[in-house]
Amino acid sequence: MGQAGPVGAGGGPRHTVNVAGHEVGRDFVLVAGPCAVESEEQTVGVARRVKAAGAHMLRGGAYKPRTSPHDFQGLGEEGLRILGVARAETGLPIVTEVMDARHIETVLRVADVLQVGSRNMQNFTLLRELGRVDRPVLLKRGMSATVSEWLSAAEYILTGGNEDVILCERGIRTFETCTRNTLDLSVVPVVKEQSPLPVIVDPSHGTGRASIVRPMCLAAVAAGADGLLIEVHPAPSAASSDRDQQLTPDEFTALAPVVLRLVTHLLNGGVQP
Amino acid sequence: MGQAGPVGAGGGPRHTVNVAGHEVGRDFVLVAGPCAVESEEQTVGVARRVKAAGAHMLRGGAYKPRTSPHDFQGLGEEGLRILGVARAETGLPIVTEVMDARHIETVLRVADVLQVGSRNMQNFTLLRELGRVDRPVLLKRGMSATVSEWLSAAEYILTGGNEDVILCERGIRTFETCTRNTLDLSVVPVVKEQSPLPVIVDPSHGTGRASIVRPMCLAAVAAGADGLLIEVHPAPSAASSDRDQQLTPDEFTALAPVVLRLVTHLLNGGVQP
Amino acid sequence: MGQAGPVGAGGGPRHTVNVAGHEVGRDFVLVAGPCAVESEEQTVGVARRVKAAGAHMLRGGAYKPRTSPHDFQGLGEEGLRILGVARAETGLPIVTEVMDARHIETVLRVADVLQVGSRNMQNFTLLRELGRVDRPVLLKRGMSATVSEWLSAAEYILTGGNEDVILCERGIRTFETCTRNTLDLSVVPVVKEQSPLPVIVDPSHGTGRASIVRPMCLAAVAAGADGLLIEVHPAPSAASSDRDQQLTPDEFTALAPVVLRLVTHLLNGGVQP
Amino acid sequence: MGQAGPVGAGGGPRHTVNVAGHEVGRDFVLVAGPCAVESEEQTVGVARRVKAAGAHMLRGGAYKPRTSPHDFQGLGEEGLRILGVARAETGLPIVTEVMDARHIETVLRVADVLQVGSRNMQNFTLLRELGRVDRPVLLKRGMSATVSEWLSAAEYILTGGNEDVILCERGIRTFETCTRNTLDLSVVPVVKEQSPLPVIVDPSHGTGRASIVRPMCLAAVAAGADGLLIEVHPAPSAASSDRDQQLTPDEFTALAPVVLRLVTHLLNGGVQP
Repeated sequence: MGQAGPVGAGGGPRHTVNVAGHEVGRDFVLVAGPCAVESEEQTVGVARRVKAAGAHMLRGGAYKPRTSPHDFQGLGEEGLRILGVARAETGLPIVTEVMDARHIETVLRVADVLQVGSRNMQNFTLLRELGRVDRPVLLKRGMSATVSEWLSAAEYILTGGNEDVILCERGIRTFETCTRNTLDLSVVPVVKEQSPLPVIVDPSHGTGRASIVRPMCLAAVAAGADGLLIEVHPAPSAASSDRDQQLTPDEFTALAPVVLRLVTHLLNGGVQP
Repeated sequence: MGQAGPVGAGGGPRHTVNVAGHEVGRDFVLVAGPCAVESEEQTVGVARRVKAAGAHMLRGGAYKPRTSPHDFQGLGEEGLRILGVARAETGLPIVTEVMDARHIETVLRVADVLQVGSRNMQNFTLLRELGRVDRPVLLKRGMSATVSEWLSAAEYILTGGNEDVILCERGIRTFETCTRNTLDLSVVPVVKEQSPLPVIVDPSHGTGRASIVRPMCLAAVAAGADGLLIEVHPAPSAASSDRDQQLTPDEFTALAPVVLRLVTHLLNGGVQP
Repeated sequence: MGQAGPVGAGGGPRHTVNVAGHEVGRDFVLVAGPCAVESEEQTVGVARRVKAAGAHMLRGGAYKPRTSPHDFQGLGEEGLRILGVARAETGLPIVTEVMDARHIETVLRVADVLQVGSRNMQNFTLLRELGRVDRPVLLKRGMSATVSEWLSAAEYILTGGNEDVILCERGIRTFETCTRNTLDLSVVPVVKEQSPLPVIVDPSHGTGRASIVRPMCLAAVAAGADGLLIEVHPAPSAASSDRDQQLTPDEFTALAPVVLRLVTHLLNGGVQP
Repeated sequence: MGQAGPVGAGGGPRHTVNVAGHEVGRDFVLVAGPCAVESEEQTVGVARRVKAAGAHMLRGGAYKPRTSPHDFQGLGEEGLRILGVARAETGLPIVTEVMDARHIETVLRVADVLQVGSRNMQNFTLLRELGRVDRPVLLKRGMSATVSEWLSAAEYILTGGNEDVILCERGIRTFETCTRNTLDLSVVPVVKEQSPLPVIVDPSHGTGRASIVRPMCLAAVAAGADGLLIEVHPAPSAASSDRDQQLTPDEFTALAPVVLRLVTHLLNGGVQP
């Protein structure tokens, strides 16, 4: 971690989070991968494709928080093993979810970034434990959390001594039904006014609709996001979860350079033609 | 627990949850007590008052989930000790929150009913553990959970083998700001159409406004609620949390008989004058 | 209109609205009838049944605000003629919607109470015109209006010189999908703290679910509502609008006395057994 | 109007709306001006500044829908006269709100585009009348309208014979309070999948927070918006309405070229560095 110059609409000095040499908050970050780890072939295959397309980190869920106990719950430790293989094969750092304080030690064996999911944003005992860990935490906004509550949740980790928190907007719950959630991009500049922490955006969960992930990625970048979290699956319609929102590797490969050029355009002050 | 005849708007046979001889789901239940356990004097004093007024159980938080790490976090194990004293003094069964799977054993030493708070409704590892416990669970609705998600959360406990789940509506998050939450009483009859579980209502959190707790208690009863969870504090304005929504012991003493007579009126089919 | 003693949770003296001798705000009022006027047979038939069951007023839409221009838009002036026949036959005062300032004069020929629908709560030119009319106005809450905005909308009518406004809660828009809207009964006591105007409740639109209209009627009464607006149709499944939420005349006939006895129970201080 | 090639994420051929030679839906459009017309000096002054900075149209309210009847209600016909002067001075086409069917003729004397405000999105009698008018209509999304309801509201105008409808996203009502509304940029690509109509974005009302208008303008453009509606006032803190969200002319002058260069960058496929 370190202190970098302001990016986007921000005010004071910004905190950056070092993940395998990548300074999140200063260097734009593209995190991609499947919603859930389903098999070694699926995960390593996707990892290779997103790496080739320009992704900086691999995401994938081994422990999956699912609404119903009858849904696929993730591969657990076997999923972590597969993520480890994917890292060894591609060199991509791993972002994966931890759902319970008792799993932290196990997840730490493979994760470069520990993700706290939306449903656990106010799991305060989990947050406290993560405050004692020497590894970056990606804290998703709760699906009905205000910015103030989100920053207070981050505060649980920060006051525990772990300053490496990356915030992630992933859509909030509203009356609208044409999208799974309402992606609230205005929080990107608002958070930057109120906090030095990096903030990235997940348009996959934020919209639940693969066909609009591309424009919403660009919109997130233009709003000042420090990175994107994008779900990519070799065959979205056969995925074990979140079928409607995952991109194919080909779609991601087409999208990534457009995103990265927009980042460059904006970093140059948006003044080039 | 047992199977009882339908109460309220329901369909099939209803499940009842036995708490110290009280069959929740058949016998209307009045749970009262302070938001947080603050001292032995405070808790035992309130326990005596609510018992005298007709309450069937004592509620009080030893572990408090708080938005900010800088807020009062509850007395923890000392709080549990105090609740134990209150039970010994009054005979009231204890309803208290468990925030983490690792605390279950400790909380079980004093709790007759384990409460899962709104923020933990989708803490699936906690729910799974409670499925293995031989003690009733009071499952609060998440602040932005649909009925379907709420019943799925209950399913995590039920499929684990613990059938004694009491659901508790506590208000949902909307755009309205004149109340802390929007108390959604329509879920009472909706849940009864879809589940045999008892459902009670917490108008204290559900409104955040002591002045309207009384009419909302009556409304909840009329909607078919199997019970009420009401916050009562000896001096609400000095409370360490939730000052605006707690009743005084005097207010509760005035309210309880009105509630209980309404229950009787409705149980008699509402046909008496 | 007149000043009456407090009803429910209120504070200062309450304003009552005289409708054909019925003092709304003092005397509980039961308004019933079809969502839309479809034919003379349908409307007069329902009017006779709800009158026999104890209703005090007949509701029915001649001008219907519909989401799509391709939906049934109401019978317009022919609908008003039919409502006039129903009044002549039963003596029930008529509550019907006015959607536009230019229709006020026409609607006044038959309406005893002019309804402003949810979608028009902030149609300020319509509200202003109604401020100049010598006829009570029933002002529905906008589907996403705060209490403060709702009372400000009423203020447009009051400051125009028409003091006879009856407020009507009809559910707000939330993320929940098991009901059409979320019926917000807590506004009943909140409005009574902030305004002397009578407030009634529409559980038909408020839930969109006929099977729970009964418990929600009782809940509204217990919350202190000054009356109910209930949709009743001779054959709900064949209705030209809002099929899922209308009661049959038989269901209304069973419900009305239960509601009225609850009113009596509560008026007596809820102290009778 | 005319048919143009697809812009952004859309599907079929897109409809364009001709406003004084500018083809909205094909040519990106920048609409700017004060929330309310307050004086000739204010309005003409702002008009000159936004014209010089690159705006294509002037917005300004003569008739103002205000929550309370005690708030400033707009200058009415005098406001329209001032807008006429501003047009004569700058050549900018005028976008201004019509609140009532009876005002249409008067507003038509000066307006090049008739705006329907959020509160009137479902004022169906107004929409019907606008279907018979030979002038483009800018239809703002209701503050709690779904995309489906919004497109149905547009359908009222289209089926009346007026095909020149421009949709405008302006934020929806959610639980979040750090912004006035939640700007829902995901509707931009969603609307383009479902309708050939142009869609522009109003980040001033959409956020209510001047400090984040700039990033949200860029985000709207990146999401594929066909234009922006931006409030600009010579002295926002002294404005008669919406003080917190209006930009100064200097801020707009700095913003406009950045927006237009982003449009160019994206039109070129986002492939230039």
